[in-house]
Amino acid sequence: KSQLNPPTPEPPIPPTDHRTLAQTHDLFITSPYSPGSPLLLPNGAYLFQKLQAFLRAQYPQFGFKEVITPTIYKKSLWEKSGHWDNYAEDMFSVQGRGATGDTENADVGQNEEFGLKPMNCPGHCLLFSDEIRSYRDLPIRFADFSALHRNEISGALSGLTRVRRFHQDDAHIFCRPDQILAEIEQTLKFVGMVYDTFGLGPYKLLLSTRPQDHFIGTVEEWDRAEKQLATALTNSGREWYLNEGDGAFYGPKIDIILKDSNGKEHQTATIQLDFQLPQRFDLQYQASPEEIMTGTKSPSTEGLDPANRRPVIIHRAIYGSLERFIALLIEHYAGKYPFWLSPRPAIILSLNQDPKTLKHVSYLQSVLSGLKLPQTESDEYASPLPQSLSTVHLPIDVDISARGLGKKITAAKKKKYNHIIVVGAEEVQSGGMRLEVNHQPDKPTIKEVLGAILGRELEEAETE
Amino acid sequence: KSQLNPPTPEPPIPPTDHRTLAQTHDLFITSPYSPGSPLLLPNGAYLFQKLQAFLRAQYPQFGFKEVITPTIYKKSLWEKSGHWDNYAEDMFSVQGRGATGDTENADVGQNEEFGLKPMNCPGHCLLFSDEIRSYRDLPIRFADFSALHRNEISGALSGLTRVRRFHQDDAHIFCRPDQILAEIEQTLKFVGMVYDTFGLGPYKLLLSTRPQDHFIGTVEEWDRAEKQLATALTNSGREWYLNEGDGAFYGPKIDIILKDSNGKEHQTATIQLDFQLPQRFDLQYQASPEEIMTGTKSPSTEGLDPANRRPVIIHRAIYGSLERFIALLIEHYAGKYPFWLSPRPAIILSLNQDPKTLKHVSYLQSVLSGLKLPQTESDEYASPLPQSLSTVHLPIDVDISARGLGKKITAAKKKKYNHIIVVGAEEVQSGGMRLEVNHQPDKPTIKEVLGAILGRELEEAETE
Ligand SMILES: [Zn+2]
Ligand SMILES: [Zn+2]
Repeated sequence: KSQLNPPTPEPPIPPTDHRTLAQTHDLFITSPYSPGSPLLLPNGAYLFQKLQAFLRAQYPQFGFKEVITPTIYKKSLWEKSGHWDNYAEDMFSVQGRGATGDTENADVGQNEEFGLKPMNCPGHCLLFSDEIRSYRDLPIRFADFSALHRNEISGALSGLTRVRRFHQDDAHIFCRPDQILAEIEQTLKFVGMVYDTFGLGPYKLLLSTRPQDHFIGTVEEWDRAEKQLATALTNSGREWYLNEGDGAFYGPKIDIILKDSNGKEHQTATIQLDFQLPQRFDLQYQASPEEIMTGTKSPSTEGLDPANRRPVIIHRAIYGSLERFIALLIEHYAGKYPFWLSPRPAIILSLNQDPKTLKHVSYLQSVLSGLKLPQTESDEYASPLPQSLSTVHLPIDVDISARGLGKKITAAKKKKYNHIIVVGAEEVQSGGMRLEVNHQPDKPTIKEVLGAILGRELEEAETE
Repeated sequence: KSQLNPPTPEPPIPPTDHRTLAQTHDLFITSPYSPGSPLLLPNGAYLFQKLQAFLRAQYPQFGFKEVITPTIYKKSLWEKSGHWDNYAEDMFSVQGRGATGDTENADVGQNEEFGLKPMNCPGHCLLFSDEIRSYRDLPIRFADFSALHRNEISGALSGLTRVRRFHQDDAHIFCRPDQILAEIEQTLKFVGMVYDTFGLGPYKLLLSTRPQDHFIGTVEEWDRAEKQLATALTNSGREWYLNEGDGAFYGPKIDIILKDSNGKEHQTATIQLDFQLPQRFDLQYQASPEEIMTGTKSPSTEGLDPANRRPVIIHRAIYGSLERFIALLIEHYAGKYPFWLSPRPAIILSLNQDPKTLKHVSYLQSVLSGLKLPQTESDEYASPLPQSLSTVHLPIDVDISARGLGKKITAAKKKKYNHIIVVGAEEVQSGGMRLEVNHQPDKPTIKEVLGAILGRELEEAETE
């Protein structure tokens, strides 16, 4: 089974299950037409994209470059990577439905079987080996948010935690053996930064080392790598534990185990070293003068030009499965999402159905959403303006139904909007709005932000 | 064959083929392990994501909500939608490799065959029918950037234009029959805005209407819909033509035909009305008082509660296939991408290898990339700061090799960077940089922008 997305040890039965909480916010549905592939509704997709955008915003400073890679690869690739055998029943196989009409001039493999990818690593190896790499080019870090598929038994599927289709914030670092320390240190800092941002933790770090009997490479290689991992762990200043002999045969790893508010442990991030895949894909780089001088030999460089070396691959994921991470956040926030992440940051309620009121509601909605507006009245019928890529748009909802205010407020609170904004004749007059703040930890800031957007100070009637 | 992603009528042989130009910028590679599924290198993925981000930034003002939907659905869904038969050999079939171990308690369909999705529509129909919809809720607009697969013959595959795996800026509008005009008007405005942004055009609009013999629904329904399409086309102020009788049996459509600089025509965007899918998926909404009063009946509402109606589906894509649109842009810009889209906006070259120079290079790289930097010298070893989601990061490259400046400049020009920045002892002294501008139409602005970032006026040595 995969080290990168292991199943949660016990079925999740915390006080409020993510599947129940997800209904309040209309995050996702499931369908018998695709068991284990949750369908993310607009609010769920919003959460998903915020998580993705947050990580993307961090990639430049950590040197990751995103790539976009295929969903299906021929069986022969999975045989080369070892997945076809080792992963066997966890994989879906894909076949063209009658690749007819060109049997005469068919390419070799025209009718070959494909596999639906359970992991991105083989694809990234193809990208690495597309160019001649020098020791100076390393580390090379490819990130990939592709959808992945693993064929779990349908009886085991549940919500966002036990799925067949999921996305990882997956990345592979191709580095020299002497770069492992620096890469692991950076990765641990990355993990810390992300988990702090979401207020997740504490977490513990687990180092799994060389198994006793069956392993690839030399003892020296393992020792050298493990020493770097241990140093990085110590330098991180966090608690860490040793799982001696518990590593995979192809490399040591670090697991990040998160404790939630109910004391339940979740394995989320993983950092897995890999000495095997570089060998299977015959990955190499032109050695540095130092490497040539010391001239180490090992099974994994056998057959290589003496001027070349194999890189080490580090598989790493910080969220792990985004779907599972979302489930975790749903329970972590229990419906009270911070403003920047909230799929329901604000709703505007109209006090009446006067056209002037409705116009003001629509104006506030546009302004608070972050939309560029036409400058003059007559522009209203002109072509829409292109919105800038740097604008963060907020999904501001409105309720302009004929219902009374009490009912509207009750409905809005049930849906857990961070802010409830009420607009009537008075607000039309003043050009302002009446604000109720719910589920918003940083109240003064938000008053300021909204006020600044409007260019006015806000009246506030707090609740909760 | 699909109306939404038809093959280009002729193989693309313009003066410079996109496959050649793509090599200059390292945009993508292909692999025999997955024919027709291009692997996007970091620069290609950057272009892809800019296009995606640009469209996402426009979605709020046009009322589209993004959703995330499965890659595989059971055969039974594709039978329901009609794709399994009508699309037959264009689809890939997917099968679990031995869903063993639970034949006893297996759900119905545990071992059922899946289809790899060639289109998003059936998934969006599932989302629509998940809730009871009222006439007030319409239009509902779902957008989806999912990967799609169509099994083209391998001999026909080529670059980014004839592929098996691609992504559309796909969306489905579920609306009332009386909302067609407004939706089409908005969609045509959207198309115009996007094509203007990229400087693409002119383009012509083609309306395909009801076929003579075989069609779904009533003549009245068709007439009413076609009248709205024609009015929207006329209101757009663009040239449009009639393709009488050339519509699909399930609804009329508008094609957008783009003429490139070589006079070659490309079909990109499509707006396809669909009276059939709502019927196959039994989609309905609670009718408005007006609809109940007029009480129209038609085959597509047969069997429906008299208080309910079927929505119309509008399939629409503005880019069409993102891969094909990128190919088009590659040839359109011929390597000279505008700054905001360019995968190589700037490179910094060091004049020497003095540590002070290298430090200044690294400082400039961070600042120009848009990275938040540690405030003090001692912060350098502190934890990295989370970068904001609203920052647009630029991929700024450096060349600090020991080669001479002449060689570095030649290499940088070959790679078509928009800006070449040179840093030596003098620049370290002044804290500035020396700038060469290439392929940048809006020179004064960029001087200003970079100067503002640095807080200094720039020395400039123009080239080209
Ligand atoms: Zn991996
Ligand atoms: Zn469609």
